[in-house]
Amino acid sequence: MSNDVPRVPAERLAAFILRVFTAAGVPAGDAQTLANLMVEADLRGSDTHGVIRLPLYVRRLRAGGVNATPNIRVVSDRPSAALIDGDNGMGHLVMRRAAELAIEKAKATGVGWVGARMSNHAGPAALYVTMPLKHDMIGLYFAVGSSNHLPPWGGSESLLGTNPMAVAVPALDEPPIVLDMSPTVAAYGKVRLKAQRGEPMPVGWMIDREGKPLTDPKRADEGHLLPIGDYKGSGLSLIIGLLAGALNRAAIGRDVVDFVKEAGKPTNTGQAIAALLIEAFLPPLEFKRAVDRLIRDIRNSPRLPGVDRIWLPGEQSHTKLLDRRAHGVPLPKALRESLDGIARDLNIELLG
Amino acid sequence: MSNDVPRVPAERLAAFILRVFTAAGVPAGDAQTLANLMVEADLRGSDTHGVIRLPLYVRRLRAGGVNATPNIRVVSDRPSAALIDGDNGMGHLVMRRAAELAIEKAKATGVGWVGARMSNHAGPAALYVTMPLKHDMIGLYFAVGSSNHLPPWGGSESLLGTNPMAVAVPALDEPPIVLDMSPTVAAYGKVRLKAQRGEPMPVGWMIDREGKPLTDPKRADEGHLLPIGDYKGSGLSLIIGLLAGALNRAAIGRDVVDFVKEAGKPTNTGQAIAALLIEAFLPPLEFKRAVDRLIRDIRNSPRLPGVDRIWLPGEQSHTKLLDRRAHGVPLPKALRESLDGIARDLNIELLG
Repeated sequence: MSNDVPRVPAERLAAFILRVFTAAGVPAGDAQTLANLMVEADLRGSDTHGVIRLPLYVRRLRAGGVNATPNIRVVSDRPSAALIDGDNGMGHLVMRRAAELAIEKAKATGVGWVGARMSNHAGPAALYVTMPLKHDMIGLYFAVGSSNHLPPWGGSESLLGTNPMAVAVPALDEPPIVLDMSPTVAAYGKVRLKAQRGEPMPVGWMIDREGKPLTDPKRADEGHLLPIGDYKGSGLSLIIGLLAGALNRAAIGRDVVDFVKEAGKPTNTGQAIAALLIEAFLPPLEFKRAVDRLIRDIRNSPRLPGVDRIWLPGEQSHTKLLDRRAHGVPLPKALRESLDGIARDLNIELLG
Repeated sequence: MSNDVPRVPAERLAAFILRVFTAAGVPAGDAQTLANLMVEADLRGSDTHGVIRLPLYVRRLRAGGVNATPNIRVVSDRPSAALIDGDNGMGHLVMRRAAELAIEKAKATGVGWVGARMSNHAGPAALYVTMPLKHDMIGLYFAVGSSNHLPPWGGSESLLGTNPMAVAVPALDEPPIVLDMSPTVAAYGKVRLKAQRGEPMPVGWMIDREGKPLTDPKRADEGHLLPIGDYKGSGLSLIIGLLAGALNRAAIGRDVVDFVKEAGKPTNTGQAIAALLIEAFLPPLEFKRAVDRLIRDIRNSPRLPGVDRIWLPGEQSHTKLLDRRAHGVPLPKALRESLDGIARDLNIELLG
């Protein structure tokens, strides 16, 4: 599909994002960090969580919903646990700091668990949950979604979000296993995409207030997402919300602010990242060999009729990463136009 | 339903289990621990993971598949992480020890993560994941299932198990939130129950080797369980298996031993438990008040038509715990007969 879409080299995209954030009042170092992380999201194939969010981020920064010059600080600190207050800065900056601290603690004690409050949307979990990998650690990540679209099981008020959880596990010669999932059948971004394309949603994505299937994505506001595994997905969302939100004195339930609809309002987004030092359990080389073996057993196992290939979690994303590093990030026409719009608004050089 | 089933007081059931394990060669202290934990499983309503497993446990002990007198020991130790070798003892003994160690580490550093290898089936996760609660901690639990019934997404060989994960979060006046779930639509115990009752399974529980719906529970051996959320549940099972199995040098994938079919063979079951000290993030009282508020917001939120009540994860189990503590554990006739059978085999006093 993306073969037909014009590509832009990662470096050029990063330089553009840097210009945008700098023009929006973000200090140069932070703007560079944001540019690198957002481009990495697009390189990994997280097309709904990368540069496509730039217009929204800029809107929130300019509306005062996000703090361009935050004082991100550790407000509670133990040998293996900490809480970071993001001072309402960009979530990417907060969670990079949280991941670094979790890694440091895991080096010292075997495990590091760092929560964040007063954070914001941080792009895809994969950016942070993979940071521990190069230190021979496993990463875990939990976040409160930036709007509530999921009711508790049996309910008809969206008190819960598509709260994502992610786990990253290093392999030796194989790409790492990276599971990054929301506990809903479809993420809300997919609903928006269907609406943009004028296509109906499959039965099973959403229900209306009466509990009947909702397939018209333009009526999404009248309905709710469905959780995976019925009460299981709803319970998973609640638990992720407690770990990433309540435990960090961040928003959960009715306190969650819809970051699209209320651009000028701080969200008090909560996230958590944990790093597990593999060496605390067994030699990393032995572990990674076992992971390689399991990956290959799974990939080469018998397939159902009609299935061409069994993919491991994160493998398709890894394939995109290699392709896009070499050939650039696909930028569909509508996205390019919206980026041009930001450039004109901020009076900066176009992406080119 | 259970109102029609004869009840037996928890103490009497525990005394019987103690006699059974003692007769099977388990030292008195360990036998008492097993009796208490197994009865607690039944009190909590885990009818598929409590005393109903006693015949299998005894069979495995007598066949040499489980070590009656294990030397359970810590084989790797860091300030916040450890690995325990269960020496092929009963999983309950191994995981109680693991939970205690995780709690100790969390007290000292903020987080404790303890893995176990050479363990065995330990009953329901709820037994261990709730142990941190009274220390004002959150509990997390991951386990490799005791047989493989789940293929990777797209596959037709069961390389994965119904690997459970559980999280327990304390509240103040409300019962704790306890999510204890497998990443499959139905647990395998439910399939066995349908077979016993001669009832068909609903479409969506299992598929056959061609990928077609399998509804005859007597043909369960020819098919596979379906994961929740398609590739998400399958990915979740893999990740749980890596955290609980591979990281602990325990069995995963093709190394998993079916503990029912191979009673004489050690399973090298892997489990992991983590404890998170709430005080490392915020005052526990403040946290538990926030959890109470969220629980009540959810319970009192608008319901879908036909829904009488919104239940929180673990709430029905808590209700059963109160009822069964007061009125005893329901023992269906078939279960009673199987317990009588064990007593005769071991030449010990009947349950009475």
